[in-house]
Amino acid sequence: MTKKIAILGASGYTGAELCRLIAGHPGMEIVALTGDRKAGQSMASVYPFLRSAGLPDLVRIEDVDFSGVDLAFCALPHATSQSVIKALPIDLKVVDLSADFRLRDVADYAKWYGKAHDAPELQAEAVYGLTEFYRDEIRTARLVAGTGCNAATGQFALRPLIAAGVVDLDDIILDLICGVSGAGRSLKENLLHAELSEGTNAYALGSTHRHLGEFDQEFSMVAGRKVEVQFTPHLAPFNRGILATCYVKGDAQAIYAALSDAYQSEAFIEVLPMGAAPSTHDVRGTNYCHIGVVADRRSGRAQVVAALDNLCKGSSGQAIQNANLMLDLEETAGLMGPGVFP
Amino acid sequence: MTKKIAILGASGYTGAELCRLIAGHPGMEIVALTGDRKAGQSMASVYPFLRSAGLPDLVRIEDVDFSGVDLAFCALPHATSQSVIKALPIDLKVVDLSADFRLRDVADYAKWYGKAHDAPELQAEAVYGLTEFYRDEIRTARLVAGTGCNAATGQFALRPLIAAGVVDLDDIILDLICGVSGAGRSLKENLLHAELSEGTNAYALGSTHRHLGEFDQEFSMVAGRKVEVQFTPHLAPFNRGILATCYVKGDAQAIYAALSDAYQSEAFIEVLPMGAAPSTHDVRGTNYCHIGVVADRRSGRAQVVAALDNLCKGSSGQAIQNANLMLDLEETAGLMGPGVFP
Amino acid sequence: MTKKIAILGASGYTGAELCRLIAGHPGMEIVALTGDRKAGQSMASVYPFLRSAGLPDLVRIEDVDFSGVDLAFCALPHATSQSVIKALPIDLKVVDLSADFRLRDVADYAKWYGKAHDAPELQAEAVYGLTEFYRDEIRTARLVAGTGCNAATGQFALRPLIAAGVVDLDDIILDLICGVSGAGRSLKENLLHAELSEGTNAYALGSTHRHLGEFDQEFSMVAGRKVEVQFTPHLAPFNRGILATCYVKGDAQAIYAALSDAYQSEAFIEVLPMGAAPSTHDVRGTNYCHIGVVADRRSGRAQVVAALDNLCKGSSGQAIQNANLMLDLEETAGLMGPGVFP
Amino acid sequence: MTKKIAILGASGYTGAELCRLIAGHPGMEIVALTGDRKAGQSMASVYPFLRSAGLPDLVRIEDVDFSGVDLAFCALPHATSQSVIKALPIDLKVVDLSADFRLRDVADYAKWYGKAHDAPELQAEAVYGLTEFYRDEIRTARLVAGTGCNAATGQFALRPLIAAGVVDLDDIILDLICGVSGAGRSLKENLLHAELSEGTNAYALGSTHRHLGEFDQEFSMVAGRKVEVQFTPHLAPFNRGILATCYVKGDAQAIYAALSDAYQSEAFIEVLPMGAAPSTHDVRGTNYCHIGVVADRRSGRAQVVAALDNLCKGSSGQAIQNANLMLDLEETAGLMGPGVFP
Repeated sequence: MTKKIAILGASGYTGAELCRLIAGHPGMEIVALTGDRKAGQSMASVYPFLRSAGLPDLVRIEDVDFSGVDLAFCALPHATSQSVIKALPIDLKVVDLSADFRLRDVADYAKWYGKAHDAPELQAEAVYGLTEFYRDEIRTARLVAGTGCNAATGQFALRPLIAAGVVDLDDIILDLICGVSGAGRSLKENLLHAELSEGTNAYALGSTHRHLGEFDQEFSMVAGRKVEVQFTPHLAPFNRGILATCYVKGDAQAIYAALSDAYQSEAFIEVLPMGAAPSTHDVRGTNYCHIGVVADRRSGRAQVVAALDNLCKGSSGQAIQNANLMLDLEETAGLMGPGVFP
Repeated sequence: MTKKIAILGASGYTGAELCRLIAGHPGMEIVALTGDRKAGQSMASVYPFLRSAGLPDLVRIEDVDFSGVDLAFCALPHATSQSVIKALPIDLKVVDLSADFRLRDVADYAKWYGKAHDAPELQAEAVYGLTEFYRDEIRTARLVAGTGCNAATGQFALRPLIAAGVVDLDDIILDLICGVSGAGRSLKENLLHAELSEGTNAYALGSTHRHLGEFDQEFSMVAGRKVEVQFTPHLAPFNRGILATCYVKGDAQAIYAALSDAYQSEAFIEVLPMGAAPSTHDVRGTNYCHIGVVADRRSGRAQVVAALDNLCKGSSGQAIQNANLMLDLEETAGLMGPGVFP
Repeated sequence: MTKKIAILGASGYTGAELCRLIAGHPGMEIVALTGDRKAGQSMASVYPFLRSAGLPDLVRIEDVDFSGVDLAFCALPHATSQSVIKALPIDLKVVDLSADFRLRDVADYAKWYGKAHDAPELQAEAVYGLTEFYRDEIRTARLVAGTGCNAATGQFALRPLIAAGVVDLDDIILDLICGVSGAGRSLKENLLHAELSEGTNAYALGSTHRHLGEFDQEFSMVAGRKVEVQFTPHLAPFNRGILATCYVKGDAQAIYAALSDAYQSEAFIEVLPMGAAPSTHDVRGTNYCHIGVVADRRSGRAQVVAALDNLCKGSSGQAIQNANLMLDLEETAGLMGPGVFP
Repeated sequence: MTKKIAILGASGYTGAELCRLIAGHPGMEIVALTGDRKAGQSMASVYPFLRSAGLPDLVRIEDVDFSGVDLAFCALPHATSQSVIKALPIDLKVVDLSADFRLRDVADYAKWYGKAHDAPELQAEAVYGLTEFYRDEIRTARLVAGTGCNAATGQFALRPLIAAGVVDLDDIILDLICGVSGAGRSLKENLLHAELSEGTNAYALGSTHRHLGEFDQEFSMVAGRKVEVQFTPHLAPFNRGILATCYVKGDAQAIYAALSDAYQSEAFIEVLPMGAAPSTHDVRGTNYCHIGVVADRRSGRAQVVAALDNLCKGSSGQAIQNANLMLDLEETAGLMGPGVFP
């Protein structure tokens, strides 16, 4: 039977991406969409590309009847999400796409997000939503915390290497090139077409990006010791996609083997032939992640490159993959399609 | 039962788009892909974005066993298509995406394409593939000729107006802004990123574009007299999409009514509220066409604007819509999904 | 002797473009820059690309000592400009880049801009800044009103044709494709990279764009009768450039002759060989305007295409060209350089 | 007196960029342009953006009279350059923009370029054209070898650090994001707008890019021992610009001091305030290089980021800077202008 879905905060890019993906999902149906400032509007007016998707109008959260809802996606801004989710029915399944429940430790949350958490009891309950590594917990979870899009990309490349012990844990460098949509639909000067097209720049220099909280938490847990990667994101003029280039010390063949082993049964993670270079073009609009490995000219060093679509596999696609598990649907349902190229 | 599909000339953009769409089609399965220069290669190597679509490798046309094939899409270059199709099994259903069978009159073909037709008997048999207007003929056709992408866009905007007699037939101006993919995967200096991004230009000035052959044929037939529009296409730096801005003389309300009437039962053609402006962003990656009408400040004049995706509704999506009819499948099968935005 | 220049409202794109051009100008020197919200900041912080230009910091207008200033460029928002200029020293030469003084008739101003003019006495004094057609008046003017960028493009293409009587005045269609920077540095959703790249749309449909006030004023004056063109602008994903495609009725040879005659002595207006198509790529970053003419396949009809850079020839370049005249400098000083390509 | 300049191979992007820069140069005049396949054509037809620059037509090299030429820029393809320069008058000053004379060691050349050098005697004579570090040699050189654009960017960031001994020589990682024009005007599928816009990818993975030959040569020489950096370039959808993000081990303050000291008298190299992030937007179209330094969260580690325009400071601007020295002109002549933004 088709599962009834609500999307809270549907007027942002991840909300729109959820609508797009559910439109092609055989087992889900959207019954409620919320958007506070845009309540009362049709999705066709907020996102004309969804005009033909037969969606309900946007309403306020307090006007949603959750009694018939099987699962809610929460695509609200960071910090807002925790107070909203706290007020939802206690038995409602929730996949949160914000940063609010990614960090298990309240002190870590306060450190990286600069405020005390409003729902620490939920924080403890939440399962980290990196599907390929938390599948069993997600299946039985009530609240799943979607990962950061950068955090997902970096972990797909590095997590199996740390787990397998094939790289030097003290010298991991993670260099990212990110598309624009990761910044959301926010009105900032540097996101204007005139400012952003035709060039590139680094940001959050010095390993200060908030997604480091996730890297630190997960990598340290996997390694059984403290692991701190260096991480520099760059903003480049394309809308979708993250390309992670990781510089690691270790044997390239062992690295390749660790990745191949880790992902051999995964539907969405493709380890390319040794030496091949992934491209964000090839995963745009999809739930796939492509990973490539190459030995550096200096022995004992390698580069691992991962590409995914930040809005899909990095956020809304991941959210649906998790919801599929939570709702006892086929994990890959609605997510296997190829992207759009060119 | 799933229909078995061959795509001849699968290495171009329209071939890749057919693969993408059929990957999400419940009633079609690709059994053969051909590409002469790339025969022997996997589609993953020619189009990495199709890596996970489970497609057969490219072969030469002569190596295809057509006995089990229900329908072939022919996505070959103009002029090549006619000789290839002539050599196919006489009872094989074919949707041709080239320009070879769009013009019914051999003299018109020679005039616009500069050579005598190699298969005039097929030219006579072919049905013009503008689905919404040739639905019945297409249902029983063996050979359907896909329209030009510009020709489709202009006809969606103008054909009902000519049929309804609500515009001056002697003063129709059709101004187009076209994305890059319409030019195909051809290696030309003006299609390089460095040359094409960051600006725009008109081409085929003076109403010399070949798609005028289609406009002349169709509009004159509908009007019952000779109709010659003025048509200027422009190339702008985006990959998918055509925006047609038509300047016509007539009453805007009558024009709006003619379009609304013509398309009220159509699944893919949406006439927006009076005064609204369509955008190619909203139809990117889809089989939809959005149409807007606005009265000019000068009475008796109006602008009609139409937007579609040249690779999908303007070419491969149209082809599948036609094939659905020819194969007795649901006309909309595999084509209803929303696009990708942003 | 080097002329001392102030730029009021230097934090917008036209202000920055003035800085760029004056940096390469042999006879001008910037002595004051104002920007109310950004007063106190360096231009390097507001526009890092100007870091090496040796510019003064931004100050408030009230803190500028105008006693040593030879000319002020006023690059403030529409409506703000009129009250600021009214308060400037009465003998200060001013080139205004806003819309405030373009329309001579107070009623026209009220009609197109929706408010009464605050400085009608200045409105009467202002000279319309389309240099090639108001050169003598500009030379002796105290206040010059820069034209709209769309208005400049359309007039370069059409004004000589109306003056020469070689086109039907009742059937002039002006179709524009505009780059993004024309909308300025304003924070609007539709100007975000994620929303604007990868597609195009028309806006101000139905001939409702404010620049029509200028077209009506100027074309009617030249024709000696009321002339109302149809005008549809489109927004496309590039930063600089306007391409105007004009559909006119008249003899293409006569049209070509009228344009060639009008511009034969002009340094910045190039009439390309008959049939050639201008491109905005070729004028990006320059003060040049390229114009092409082609006969339509239907006799008695033609297309005239004009390309210029909206920020330069359409705005700040034009402003400097006018200032050169007002300051008795060489008209072309600082403006002859080629653009940047690719 | 104005110096007479010839440009050999003027039909590529670096040739066009030389023309652009010399158009604004007070001490140089172009007297000959060559382009074998395009001989006989005007530059306006090859590069319409140069239409107003008053340039001579393209001719074949054998038709150039070098007797009155003060200096020739050689912008020919790699491998072609060496045979052409060998045949030029022995006393003609030459700035070569190809890779042919960058490596001093014939064995290194053979290793990185896969062939024996045709003019080893010239190879020995050539001075490496990284102006800021070879100024004195360049001043008296007859033949200067322009650096690779990636090689220039990386060296500006790293060379002073190696010289000052403030970074660990065994752990230098150089990650680059490169605009499209670095690949030249070559017709390759991956350079088409449709393929390259909307995404990014790494290439030359595993530290296999030819510019490593230059890094190895220069860094090892400066260090007095073998230094092998890791280097991964990425291709992103913008036309001009290289952003180098360097990961180094060393004290950020010492690194900042080394860079500030090295460049304090340089006109074109700007070390930004500690912690600031350079952007390619800010140097587009200019001869400037911006450098930023930031301490990583892990002590003893830092990131150094450098941005320049590959066609200008990375190639043709550098070439003119060198030519200025060779011709006893002001080193900065014609090169101080700000770029074009947006």
